[in-house]
Amino acid sequence: MRLALILGVAALIAASPLGAAPPASTANDWRDVDPDNLVLIDTRYGEVAVELAPEFAPNHVARLRALVRSHFFDGKSFYRVIDGFVAQGGVGEGTASTKGLGHDAKMAKDWPPLKAEFDVPAAQAGLFTPLGSPDLFAPEVGHVNGFPVARDMKDGKAWIAHCPGTFAFARDNANDTATTEFYVVIGEMQRRLDRNLTAFGRVIDGMQYLQKLNRGNPDVDSGVIQNPKDRDPILRVRLASDLPESVRPHFQVMRTDSAAFAAKKAQRLNPAPQFYHRKPPQVLDLCNTPVPVRKLEKG
Amino acid sequence: MRLALILGVAALIAASPLGAAPPASTANDWRDVDPDNLVLIDTRYGEVAVELAPEFAPNHVARLRALVRSHFFDGKSFYRVIDGFVAQGGVGEGTASTKGLGHDAKMAKDWPPLKAEFDVPAAQAGLFTPLGSPDLFAPEVGHVNGFPVARDMKDGKAWIAHCPGTFAFARDNANDTATTEFYVVIGEMQRRLDRNLTAFGRVIDGMQYLQKLNRGNPDVDSGVIQNPKDRDPILRVRLASDLPESVRPHFQVMRTDSAAFAAKKAQRLNPAPQFYHRKPPQVLDLCNTPVPVRKLEKG
Repeated sequence: MRLALILGVAALIAASPLGAAPPASTANDWRDVDPDNLVLIDTRYGEVAVELAPEFAPNHVARLRALVRSHFFDGKSFYRVIDGFVAQGGVGEGTASTKGLGHDAKMAKDWPPLKAEFDVPAAQAGLFTPLGSPDLFAPEVGHVNGFPVARDMKDGKAWIAHCPGTFAFARDNANDTATTEFYVVIGEMQRRLDRNLTAFGRVIDGMQYLQKLNRGNPDVDSGVIQNPKDRDPILRVRLASDLPESVRPHFQVMRTDSAAFAAKKAQRLNPAPQFYHRKPPQVLDLCNTPVPVRKLEKG
Repeated sequence: MRLALILGVAALIAASPLGAAPPASTANDWRDVDPDNLVLIDTRYGEVAVELAPEFAPNHVARLRALVRSHFFDGKSFYRVIDGFVAQGGVGEGTASTKGLGHDAKMAKDWPPLKAEFDVPAAQAGLFTPLGSPDLFAPEVGHVNGFPVARDMKDGKAWIAHCPGTFAFARDNANDTATTEFYVVIGEMQRRLDRNLTAFGRVIDGMQYLQKLNRGNPDVDSGVIQNPKDRDPILRVRLASDLPESVRPHFQVMRTDSAAFAAKKAQRLNPAPQFYHRKPPQVLDLCNTPVPVRKLEKG
């Protein structure tokens, strides 16, 4: 009885809608993560891998690549971390925003404010696979290339939803003011941020290292960690395509338009009946429908 | 521009539905946490405080108090921790479940299996305050004494929903098999566990310490951390009422049937328009509607 006293995830993984094991995925069910879209953030707890989605915010993606290549983030810190909400890093290092300056003249010249990319024409976003469940926050939700996406066909727009792991740029009060600061959703979904900020990536590995980051007090200075010594450093940020191929990590994401992903969703709706004696409500939540990722070994 | 480049939580906190600061809460808007329902878990990262809800599972609450008072958990560990899902602790210490024994004869005698308490008659649960938004997983959701609660008036039952921070007992495959193991939801909501397991508390402080726990690999042995040295210890678990009054922490939870909490919900639907240029969808999610908690200083 290996399952004794544990939650039965093993059983759950093994069970298909009909109680038999689901067919194994094939190579065609996976796509390689483009190293140009793969950002690696070294923390003292481990490496965090973020996949970028240029289709949803080409200018923000270009900016992020430029920042990374100029080593902008290296040695800065996660200076604002709010449990259940976001981990934020960038200029807030006792300079710029934490001194109330916004950005100084050199910053403004080097990294001028970006025009918001809160959403894109749905046709430009890529192949949308509906989740198959209703949503509280948007007319329609599903996946594009593994990213959690919401859309509204009344105005023909699509956007990346603020789920745990969503990567985005912070901004000032005005919309077109993002420059260099990023945040990652580390808690519950934050769907009300959708279309109010530019989301353009998601953590595909290492979420648990972001969860280890020291927290600020949300009631003090918006969660900015007051003593810089208590802030966890951003040791280094690199783009995978800038690394020699021999040391690049190689990730694959399950294609969300594949039969394998459809089977994963069906399995989630119909978990192992020997453990789930009450069949769960026949609904999926966008932010709580994991998209499988795997890291291939070298050689 | 103190808000420069940060997400504007300060603005959000300051804003009422009409754009002015909400009225401050009064003493009547808060209730004291009963020290008999307050469980304190010492981790190496800090103290985690869990409030128990005996109305929802009187026998599980009685069992937990007895376990705590017998020092059952002291020196055990969080041996199964899955990022985005649960942190689990109890007997899985290279004995019992991790050896595949379930529970040995002494365990079975000391801590016999409990009858499931997956839900209770709604009338017994206490005063229910509707959230005021629809829900994907249950006919109706809201709060009872600060706990996130779902109910179905067709069968007249209410239960604590599996939101981040929800505290529950694990079990074997059969329903009436919980004995000593607890888990806490540390990731997204896990609503499909609702009414399949007995949930009877929630973390009211220290969630960030649980987030720091070392993780297992969900694909290996259901997430059990294979090397015991990698498991974070449960240093000590105590019931606040067993501590001298002089050293007891004193928590208050905002009454979820108060005008102050109604104002919090309204404020969440209508965050600062100077930052949220797009008004969020007018809906709240049960698991992402924080219930304020405060810790009173001594003296």
